[in-house]
Amino acid sequence: MRTGIFVGRFQPFHKGHLEAVRYALGRVDRLVIVIGSAQRNYEPRNPFTLGERIEMIWRVLRTEGLLDRVLIVPVQDVENHATWVKFVEASVPEFSHVFSNDPLTLELFRAEGYDAAEVPLLNRPLYMATEVRQRMANGGNWEDLVPSPVAEYLKEIGGVDRVRRILGAE
Amino acid sequence: MRTGIFVGRFQPFHKGHLEAVRYALGRVDRLVIVIGSAQRNYEPRNPFTLGERIEMIWRVLRTEGLLDRVLIVPVQDVENHATWVKFVEASVPEFSHVFSNDPLTLELFRAEGYDAAEVPLLNRPLYMATEVRQRMANGGNWEDLVPSPVAEYLKEIGGVDRVRRILGAE
Amino acid sequence: MRTGIFVGRFQPFHKGHLEAVRYALGRVDRLVIVIGSAQRNYEPRNPFTLGERIEMIWRVLRTEGLLDRVLIVPVQDVENHATWVKFVEASVPEFSHVFSNDPLTLELFRAEGYDAAEVPLLNRPLYMATEVRQRMANGGNWEDLVPSPVAEYLKEIGGVDRVRRILGAE
Amino acid sequence: MRTGIFVGRFQPFHKGHLEAVRYALGRVDRLVIVIGSAQRNYEPRNPFTLGERIEMIWRVLRTEGLLDRVLIVPVQDVENHATWVKFVEASVPEFSHVFSNDPLTLELFRAEGYDAAEVPLLNRPLYMATEVRQRMANGGNWEDLVPSPVAEYLKEIGGVDRVRRILGAE
Amino acid sequence: MRTGIFVGRFQPFHKGHLEAVRYALGRVDRLVIVIGSAQRNYEPRNPFTLGERIEMIWRVLRTEGLLDRVLIVPVQDVENHATWVKFVEASVPEFSHVFSNDPLTLELFRAEGYDAAEVPLLNRPLYMATEVRQRMANGGNWEDLVPSPVAEYLKEIGGVDRVRRILGAE
Amino acid sequence: MRTGIFVGRFQPFHKGHLEAVRYALGRVDRLVIVIGSAQRNYEPRNPFTLGERIEMIWRVLRTEGLLDRVLIVPVQDVENHATWVKFVEASVPEFSHVFSNDPLTLELFRAEGYDAAEVPLLNRPLYMATEVRQRMANGGNWEDLVPSPVAEYLKEIGGVDRVRRILGAE
Repeated sequence: MRTGIFVGRFQPFHKGHLEAVRYALGRVDRLVIVIGSAQRNYEPRNPFTLGERIEMIWRVLRTEGLLDRVLIVPVQDVENHATWVKFVEASVPEFSHVFSNDPLTLELFRAEGYDAAEVPLLNRPLYMATEVRQRMANGGNWEDLVPSPVAEYLKEIGGVDRVRRILGAE
Repeated sequence: MRTGIFVGRFQPFHKGHLEAVRYALGRVDRLVIVIGSAQRNYEPRNPFTLGERIEMIWRVLRTEGLLDRVLIVPVQDVENHATWVKFVEASVPEFSHVFSNDPLTLELFRAEGYDAAEVPLLNRPLYMATEVRQRMANGGNWEDLVPSPVAEYLKEIGGVDRVRRILGAE
Repeated sequence: MRTGIFVGRFQPFHKGHLEAVRYALGRVDRLVIVIGSAQRNYEPRNPFTLGERIEMIWRVLRTEGLLDRVLIVPVQDVENHATWVKFVEASVPEFSHVFSNDPLTLELFRAEGYDAAEVPLLNRPLYMATEVRQRMANGGNWEDLVPSPVAEYLKEIGGVDRVRRILGAE
Repeated sequence: MRTGIFVGRFQPFHKGHLEAVRYALGRVDRLVIVIGSAQRNYEPRNPFTLGERIEMIWRVLRTEGLLDRVLIVPVQDVENHATWVKFVEASVPEFSHVFSNDPLTLELFRAEGYDAAEVPLLNRPLYMATEVRQRMANGGNWEDLVPSPVAEYLKEIGGVDRVRRILGAE
Repeated sequence: MRTGIFVGRFQPFHKGHLEAVRYALGRVDRLVIVIGSAQRNYEPRNPFTLGERIEMIWRVLRTEGLLDRVLIVPVQDVENHATWVKFVEASVPEFSHVFSNDPLTLELFRAEGYDAAEVPLLNRPLYMATEVRQRMANGGNWEDLVPSPVAEYLKEIGGVDRVRRILGAE
Repeated sequence: MRTGIFVGRFQPFHKGHLEAVRYALGRVDRLVIVIGSAQRNYEPRNPFTLGERIEMIWRVLRTEGLLDRVLIVPVQDVENHATWVKFVEASVPEFSHVFSNDPLTLELFRAEGYDAAEVPLLNRPLYMATEVRQRMANGGNWEDLVPSPVAEYLKEIGGVDRVRRILGAE
């Protein structure tokens, strides 16, 4: 069984992330979504808690019928970047494929010999979490950028107001 | 949807744990298996890494057809025990039920007002991870105490020899 | 006995803080001054150590005759913001009222259900620690912005020169 | 003004501690009660949170009329013991006298040149927190060993039952 | 034997650092090169790991015939700056002289009573690690700014490409 | 150039360690002495600070004329044992040989594929740091167990009295 990991912060999980999950599942049998910066929340670039991010991703996976092929595993940041890949290796099932669009993640996995792959499309503006958060703060149309289970969940927990306050307070 | 958490260290995941999962799933719609002491490994009471524990639990859930009702979320230890429940709350989807057989876990959740429940049977000697590790170290029949996917996996990774060496080195 | 907490960094404690203490003491019987970012010092936004901040606040409280109604408790930062309120709760006597002018502090306490109150006046320019530090660095009249025991103490320890060097080194 | 520090864990604050405070106040003008292992709680040797320890000490100081001469400052443990005295120095107002009955505390302060003093009496069995906790766990007469405000407070918060459960779970 | 410390981050070790080592060795018998921010790497201001920095410095010392008079000791950052000097003192052999060109390092050592000395020349643009990293990223002539064993080593490990990618990713 | 590492805690550095250094230098060109548990000191199993351990080892290396072939690098403990080898790799120059007599160190390096070697003799009772510390505490003849520069240094700093007090306080 080929296993891959897809590394991101998912603040929040948007349609680009879902595309990336589908892309990765075309190449591996099982995918681990690694939620990075797991310990961060209630700050401008990381408004949502780990629990909230797991919930939103889980609802999308359920809707998509992917719960039997995708796991979610959180990983904290470490200051000593050179040890981070090992930290991930010790935290998730054994994997052979790495997917990410974060330059540091790619740098670190490649330094350890992984053939880490950038995911196509994910760098397009509409597929960036920064854009989603900005629209939330500015009253723009953010719902179109995220899978509908994410939009519903964020409304349930008052997530948009939180983002607006946190970005406004900067 | 009622969500519960089942807290343990799963060093390793044994038949008692599987019984507890079934018990809990009779009372909630969705269960989060919280892997405590997530950061600990290669020591007598915690021989397996987080990644290894996730793998063994995932294989059991797949065999049992439970991947769509059970999530796995690791949580680190914190020295300031009084904050640990909040740490869990911020790390997993919202939950209403707590299952555990660890006295400190029960104490801490009850102090926060949860009606945390001990799981029946789980305290029987054959359903204790300590016994499993002892048998591994002593050459006893440990395979009968764990679900078969766990036994297979531990053989794949040389887990029994590791336990023997680590317990022998004490 | 109604107890409140007043959360700030107090770098340094200025007249606005003293106003806030009086305001809070009009609403509670006992006030805990929570010194946040307790572990930070010798940096531009946090020039003074915890011990120095406790000393300056203590001298003001003594001068004002408030030592029997006001406690001082330091609290460190935590990266996992969602757990910080619990961290405070575990660190101070039980409280019902929260006073602060820091947006993140207000956000976090309100997320936990507290009716956290901004303190009137405290956002006026003369009542901001940033202004005090800037005047110290620029040779301006900072003494008028702080209670006289603070001014005396900062002169005793060479605090103004320290701020000038640290801000100059940026 | 001569300032001293009195270092302990105060799990819980007992009559021996109160004797030590009086002893120290005969030698200094102002005393800082340093609550060590501040971050520890809900464990056999450290059942009470920092906030609970501050509350119990504060009530005793109020009853004794000592709030204007005694401050309370928590300090966390550090693994690098050789740096701990400096950590304390950065956390409390400047001091010249050190009182403690903990051998490691005395060792570390003396290594830094302090004339740290053991407090008379405090090693007598009735003046030890271990004895208080044991009596709580065993149903013995613990109330006589602590100042009455401590006894009242511990009953308010169910502290005795907590100690019994935590010690019983070992 | 007079011992001095020379504190820097050495990202990378350049000719200005070597000049400083010679300058210091004119004033002390033995020099400890303290590698600060030891835990940081793979980031724009700190591209190289501790091991890589030790290797490059060691090769220079060997070439210069200085291995019997110079030690290398790494030290991590600490948030509580006021304790950092003590942290250094506990980490290196006893010393009487401090050399550095980092303003915070000088501030902290002077606050502890050391007569910390800025090293002449080291602030000239060609003697700054920032300039070296910029030239690496921009394809400029960085080799002239570092001792030749450093240039060779950085080529061996692909260090220039790493700096280019990390600075480009900002 | 073949490089090896020799991992230990060196509390204190004794004749067995020196034998091991010689043994290793017969097999590699350059040896890195990795001082483990670098952050620990003033406790029964780890009485000496990192700086003290570096000093004692450095004096032995100087006496033996080995300063140009042996480096000393401290490494902290990490709770996540599975990541420790990577932590070492990021902290020292690249190496191909591993020498140690600590079972956990051997286990962890072998798990990463290193052919880690136990050093002959080092397990003999006279070549164990535990024995040295016990003799120090009991007034036995500890000097014979350590190289003479270590014995001299420990007398200079009052190390024997420290060990006696720390072991006595247990």
